[in-house]
Amino acid sequence: MKIVVLKFGGTSVGSVDRIKKICRIISSFKKKKKQVVVISSAMSGVTNDLIKKSKLLSNNFNNAEYDALVSTGEQVSCALISGRLNHLGYKSRSWQSWQVPILTEGPYTKARINKIIVKNLLKYLKLGGIPVVTGFQGINDKLRITTIGRSGSDATAIMLAKFIKADECIIFTDVDGVYTTDPRQYKKAKKIKKIFYDEMLEMASLGSKVMQPTSVQDAKLNNIDIKVKSSFVSKSGTLIGSYKKSFSNQIITGISSTKNDAKITIIGVKDRPGVAASIFKPLSKNLINVDMVVQNISSDTRETDLTFTIKNDDLKKTEKLINQNKKISYKKLSFDKDVSKVSIIGVGMITTPGITYRMFQALASKKINILVISTSEIKISVLISSKHVKKAVAVLHKEFKLD
Amino acid sequence: MKIVVLKFGGTSVGSVDRIKKICRIISSFKKKKKQVVVISSAMSGVTNDLIKKSKLLSNNFNNAEYDALVSTGEQVSCALISGRLNHLGYKSRSWQSWQVPILTEGPYTKARINKIIVKNLLKYLKLGGIPVVTGFQGINDKLRITTIGRSGSDATAIMLAKFIKADECIIFTDVDGVYTTDPRQYKKAKKIKKIFYDEMLEMASLGSKVMQPTSVQDAKLNNIDIKVKSSFVSKSGTLIGSYKKSFSNQIITGISSTKNDAKITIIGVKDRPGVAASIFKPLSKNLINVDMVVQNISSDTRETDLTFTIKNDDLKKTEKLINQNKKISYKKLSFDKDVSKVSIIGVGMITTPGITYRMFQALASKKINILVISTSEIKISVLISSKHVKKAVAVLHKEFKLD
Repeated sequence: MKIVVLKFGGTSVGSVDRIKKICRIISSFKKKKKQVVVISSAMSGVTNDLIKKSKLLSNNFNNAEYDALVSTGEQVSCALISGRLNHLGYKSRSWQSWQVPILTEGPYTKARINKIIVKNLLKYLKLGGIPVVTGFQGINDKLRITTIGRSGSDATAIMLAKFIKADECIIFTDVDGVYTTDPRQYKKAKKIKKIFYDEMLEMASLGSKVMQPTSVQDAKLNNIDIKVKSSFVSKSGTLIGSYKKSFSNQIITGISSTKNDAKITIIGVKDRPGVAASIFKPLSKNLINVDMVVQNISSDTRETDLTFTIKNDDLKKTEKLINQNKKISYKKLSFDKDVSKVSIIGVGMITTPGITYRMFQALASKKINILVISTSEIKISVLISSKHVKKAVAVLHKEFKLD
Repeated sequence: MKIVVLKFGGTSVGSVDRIKKICRIISSFKKKKKQVVVISSAMSGVTNDLIKKSKLLSNNFNNAEYDALVSTGEQVSCALISGRLNHLGYKSRSWQSWQVPILTEGPYTKARINKIIVKNLLKYLKLGGIPVVTGFQGINDKLRITTIGRSGSDATAIMLAKFIKADECIIFTDVDGVYTTDPRQYKKAKKIKKIFYDEMLEMASLGSKVMQPTSVQDAKLNNIDIKVKSSFVSKSGTLIGSYKKSFSNQIITGISSTKNDAKITIIGVKDRPGVAASIFKPLSKNLINVDMVVQNISSDTRETDLTFTIKNDDLKKTEKLINQNKKISYKKLSFDKDVSKVSIIGVGMITTPGITYRMFQALASKKINILVISTSEIKISVLISSKHVKKAVAVLHKEFKLD
C-alpha cells in the first residue's frame, strides 16, 4: 500500500471549520486506499500570539524556553485533527515530536532534523491508523524540545517523507501552486505543473509565498518530490522535483519581479584589495540585505564604481552607514529609489543558447532601459525602472511562450 | 538547603503581568536561600478555550487526544514563567511531564499520579536551578500524555512534594486562605491559621473555593502539609495539616452553610429490605446528588418516612423520578424548597462532650427550628429554613468563640 505524507499549513488549520475541511481531504486519501501520515502546523495566529507573550516577558527570551513555548501550537492542532478523525470513525492518534521521536541537532530555534525513528509510525500505518505528527519541532540529545525555524513544518514533512520512504509528499497551503509570474500583476500568468528544485529556488520572490527556499533545498538534498496544493480549493497543484525526471521542453519556467528595490552607486571608490568587504561589512552587521552587486571596470585602474541594490526601506540607513564609513574614500554617492529586478528562470537555458539576447531584445522592443544585469546558470536578472515592470513581465512572458 | 514546592493556579498566571508578579514571589523564596520547585496551572481561560474547540469538532472527543490537547496549557505557562525567571537572571528551565517524568495510571482525563522520578529535578536543584514543572498531567505506560482532572495541578504539587521530600508545599491561588465561615455572609469571619485535613474535607462548601476535596485527600494520604496563600496580596495563608501535629485548643474550626437546597420527604413508604436503594437508584443514574438522608422510625413497623436533601435545581426531576418509580409505594410526597444546611466542623469535638447540645441550644435561643440533623465524627449539620441561615451562622460563630 502506498504511503502519502500530507502536510497542512497554518491557514489550512486556522479554524475549527478549516480542520473539518482538511479532515475531509485526509479522508479522501484513505478512500483511495493509501496509508496516510499527516503533518500539521499550528493554527494561524497561535504561534505569533505566543511569541508576543514571550516578548512582553523578556526582550531576550531564553531560546530553549521559546522552543518549549511555541512548539505547543502544533500539539494543539494535531490533537484537534486527530480528535476529529476519530469522530469521523478513523483510527488516528497525534504524535508529538518526542513520541515519534524526531531527533534534531543544532541550536534552539534553528535546529535541524537529522533523524526520524519511523518504526512506530510504520507499525501504526500497517494497523490502518492515521498518525498526525507535529511539524516544526523535534527533540535534541538533552531530551528538550527544539524548533526548526518558521515554516519548519515543511521541513518536517520532507524529512518524514524521506525516512518513511513515502511515495508522495503533498504540501497543502493557501495558494494553489507556483505561477509563471505573479497572477495579480499579469493576467496571462499560468500555473506551473512541474518545476525543478533549482528553478524554484531561483524563483524565491514567486515561490516564497508557496514554500520557503530552505525547504526546497531540503527537498532537493533528499530528492523528495513535493506537490504543492491548496487546501481551500480543489485544483491541481505544482510538482517540485529533481533534474533526473524530464519535465518538458520549456526553456523558461517562470518570470519573477521584485518591488521596493533601491539602487546605490558609489562613484570613484579608491580601488584596493578588500574595499568591497569594507563597504558591505557595516551593511551586513546592520542586517541590510544586499542583492545585486556590480563593479564596473574603470579606465583609471585606481578608481572604480560600485553599484548594488537593497530594499527601499534600508536606503536611509545604508546612506548613513556609507557616509560614516572611514575605511573607504569615494567621490560621490548616487541613488535610485524606483527600480525593480525582473528575472527569467529556467533550467532549459543551460542547454539553449541565445536566451540572454532574446531577453534583452524583447525589453529593447518596448524601449525598456536595463540598469544592471546579473546572471546565474538558470536565471537572468535585470534591474529596470519600476514603472516598466508590468510591461517587461508581459513582453517576456510572451517572448518565452508562457502565455 | 530546604526544598519548597510552589504551586500557582490559573488566575495566578492569568496574564503576562501576573506571571511577572509570581516570578517576584519565586524570587523572594530564592533570596531566602531555599531550593524552589515551581508547579504551574494553565493561564486561566486557556484550558476552557481548548475544550470549546474540541467540542466543536466532536461531541464525543477522543479522550487521549483531549489530554494531548489540554495539557498544552501548562506547557505554555511553564515556558513563560521559566523564560521570565531567566530574564531576571535565575537559572531555570521548564519540565514537561514526560521530561520529569511524571508517571500516571488509570484512564485518560482521570489519570492518577503513581510515581515521579525526581532524580533529574534534584540534580538541577543542587546546581541552583529552578525547575518549572507542568501541573495537571503525566504520561502513561504507552508514553502518551494523560491528565488528572480539573484542579489536577494541586495533586501534582502534593505528589511532587512527597517524592522530592519537600520541606514545604505552598499552593498560591486567588483567595488568601480558609475562613471560619463565608466572609461575604458574616463579617466577623476570621481566616483559619491551621486546619486539619479532615476538617478541610468536611468544610467542602467553604474549602472548595480554595482546594478541591480530592487534593486535600491526596495531601492527607501522603501526609503533606499544605499552605494555601494568595498570589495577589501578601498575607499569611492557611496551613492544612495532619492530626499528628497539635494545632490549638479550638474545638470548632469553621462553620459552613449551603445555598439552594431542597428537602423531600416521602411519607408512608412501605418498608421492606432494599427500599432505600430502590428510591435512590434512579436518582443516582440521573446524576442527582443526594446529601442528607434521614429515615424516621415509624410506629407502624410496615411503614416509614424518608427525608433527604438535594439541590434545588434537581427538584422537578427528582419529583418526576419518584412518581415514575414502580418499585416503591408511599402515601404522600412533601417538598421544602427553601432550606439550607449549616454545619460546624472541628476535630476538637471528638474529645469534647456537649458540642451537639451547645449547637442546638444556640439555635434555639434564636428560635431557629431544626428540620433534619446529621452528624459525623468531626461535623454536625442541621437543616434549617434558608431565611435563618445568616442568623444561625452568627450565633454559632459567637457560641464557639470564632468571632
